[in-house]
Amino acid sequence: MANFDLMRQLTRKDGGKIVLLVMDGVGGLPVEHGGPTALEAAATPNMDRLAREGSVGLTNPIGHGITPGSGPAHLALFGYDPLTYVIGRGVLESFGIGMLVGPDDVAARGNFCSLDEGGLITDRRAGRIPTEKGDELCQLLSAIELSGAEPEVRAVKEYRFALVLRGERLDAHLADTDPQQVGVAPLPVQALRPEAAHTAELVQEWVDQARPILAGHAPANGFTLRGFSSDPNLPKYADVYQLKAACVAVYPMYRGLSQLVGMEVLPTDPHDTPADEFDRVAAAWDTYDFFFVHIKYTDSRGEDGDFAAKVKVIEEVDVALPRLLEVNPDVLVITGDHSTPAKMRSHSWHPVPTLLWAPATHRPDAAQAYGETECLKGSLGIFPATELMTLSLAHAGRLTKFGA
Amino acid sequence: MANFDLMRQLTRKDGGKIVLLVMDGVGGLPVEHGGPTALEAAATPNMDRLAREGSVGLTNPIGHGITPGSGPAHLALFGYDPLTYVIGRGVLESFGIGMLVGPDDVAARGNFCSLDEGGLITDRRAGRIPTEKGDELCQLLSAIELSGAEPEVRAVKEYRFALVLRGERLDAHLADTDPQQVGVAPLPVQALRPEAAHTAELVQEWVDQARPILAGHAPANGFTLRGFSSDPNLPKYADVYQLKAACVAVYPMYRGLSQLVGMEVLPTDPHDTPADEFDRVAAAWDTYDFFFVHIKYTDSRGEDGDFAAKVKVIEEVDVALPRLLEVNPDVLVITGDHSTPAKMRSHSWHPVPTLLWAPATHRPDAAQAYGETECLKGSLGIFPATELMTLSLAHAGRLTKFGA
Repeated sequence: MANFDLMRQLTRKDGGKIVLLVMDGVGGLPVEHGGPTALEAAATPNMDRLAREGSVGLTNPIGHGITPGSGPAHLALFGYDPLTYVIGRGVLESFGIGMLVGPDDVAARGNFCSLDEGGLITDRRAGRIPTEKGDELCQLLSAIELSGAEPEVRAVKEYRFALVLRGERLDAHLADTDPQQVGVAPLPVQALRPEAAHTAELVQEWVDQARPILAGHAPANGFTLRGFSSDPNLPKYADVYQLKAACVAVYPMYRGLSQLVGMEVLPTDPHDTPADEFDRVAAAWDTYDFFFVHIKYTDSRGEDGDFAAKVKVIEEVDVALPRLLEVNPDVLVITGDHSTPAKMRSHSWHPVPTLLWAPATHRPDAAQAYGETECLKGSLGIFPATELMTLSLAHAGRLTKFGA
Repeated sequence: MANFDLMRQLTRKDGGKIVLLVMDGVGGLPVEHGGPTALEAAATPNMDRLAREGSVGLTNPIGHGITPGSGPAHLALFGYDPLTYVIGRGVLESFGIGMLVGPDDVAARGNFCSLDEGGLITDRRAGRIPTEKGDELCQLLSAIELSGAEPEVRAVKEYRFALVLRGERLDAHLADTDPQQVGVAPLPVQALRPEAAHTAELVQEWVDQARPILAGHAPANGFTLRGFSSDPNLPKYADVYQLKAACVAVYPMYRGLSQLVGMEVLPTDPHDTPADEFDRVAAAWDTYDFFFVHIKYTDSRGEDGDFAAKVKVIEEVDVALPRLLEVNPDVLVITGDHSTPAKMRSHSWHPVPTLLWAPATHRPDAAQAYGETECLKGSLGIFPATELMTLSLAHAGRLTKFGA
């Protein structure tokens, strides 16, 4: 609920253990009128049993009609108001490929672009060069050295790359160099406040060194930078919730996000299945109070528009679920960060089916399964995703009474 | 959601077309326990089909338990927080009878009253004179001329009238002249800030000229003025939503309100039926992105306490609905601005049955008809009316993703 003062006042150090299982983009739509959503089409006997026993509802990630990116959607699940706590584009992009950004560092998202002989942009995406070409260029750019900061540059995908400068008291208040149009030159690096002047000079120096390196590589003979940002210094789980929290996620982006709120990232393998991820929770069970477990492929298959494949991912999670239940969590929340209907091939604003299983305290309802339609019958109603953490803490016996 | 900064950030210029069909005061209550509401009693095969196909829920116009006037209730439907954006009484009253009020003009609501020989008020409503008498008096008062402003005065109903002064940089920060009690004289016109001093003098001059005109017309030989106000300069649809919007409404009040948010008012005839109004939408379909269509008589019959007549109005709308569907709106919202239960003969605070039909993206639910009870099964839940615009924009594909 992002009322962290209240959380600090009410949380207890002791209590039950909480698992937050996020199937990314799990919510969906029927492909045809009258048909099931992917979650409803999937055979999920374990989740359905938990839904029958526990409480269900639907969460609104940001607000009615607002389609969230993964960053703000996860912040909401973590209890942080995503309209208040904003993570810069540079930081998110860097996290996405596993580059960490500290409070003193500055990250930017880069786009390779095409420049004509006069240095004016002719294509803002460099003809969408393949990722291999972007990789090659980033390796060349890695040779750049600065006095006073350590640059790291890595390809993201196609024409996109991320740049991180690590140093002391770097200041990310820099204007984009992307003019957002063709026919003009990339803008010089400019400080948006006096404290950022030194950082602006450093980045400009990097830009000046980079240009000759790219000169012969048309259509990717130039670049723009935007979304300069640092670690936003979010309040931490230990502080606001008194929770020792761990993250089990395969994708770098979610590992990075969880670190920003003070979770410890448990080692995973890029090829971990849901079962593997649950085993990792079990192995670390005694060490933490809270586990965030992230399943990526529900979202990926939704974005592919592949309804059947999304169904399969959900079924794979369900089959593995008994391993997670074996550790006997006091509170198990199963939800998504947002909906990704295969029909739309993209994230969407539709509320996310949410299941709260906490045998000691949950209030059962009429829902017979875990799915969009059944969740409408739930005792949790339709509510903001930012309230899930408070609810989980309550069911874990970790919140004291407010007022006498 | 009245977060216009977010809307400005997320809206796209292109997307589907939206129709917001408002049946004023459509929500209701059963007359007898176990009976239907007017909406449930009405035969509405078309709306019921849309409810089965689409998403339904209920909207809270202002807040739980708050009964809205038509002004704030419509602002909420338009996405404007009615507690933040307040339209003055004078402006609303003037709009109600088709008198426009610009940002430089000042409008007031007037009450004819009875004065004794000493000029003290003996009846604040002038014995509730008939509207014809009010009309006659307003025609006499129309002779008043001022140097520096153009006064217009018209009867509203019985003892009520509206006064608009049009000029340059008039300032509405004036205190009511209505002392809200009998036995005292109407108050002199007073400026509430220095900038309003000139306007106060102008209004006082009008008052001084009006008194002798009314002298022989007891019980309506005096008057008070209140609710001095100007166009509140609301953000406009084109700015906050990037929508070219049109209004189809028969009543002046709703035409005025829609102009305040930047809609263009399409010509209508006072005797337009719902079918006529839908035809007007069809005729202008290519020119606008958004249509607000207002049906007045659901509310009027509710206020009359005439349940059967309210049912008939709803049925008349349903019969005409296919004409509206012929234009193929991408998003059709059917709702009311508030409830007007015939049983209560007045506006009420009860949530309003709301139907969202957007075949490309709506999430179906278990509702089988458009009515208060069925809407409780809906996938939209019970939610603030101010969220309807955001939701409509999302379904029209007019909102980009929030964050990466």
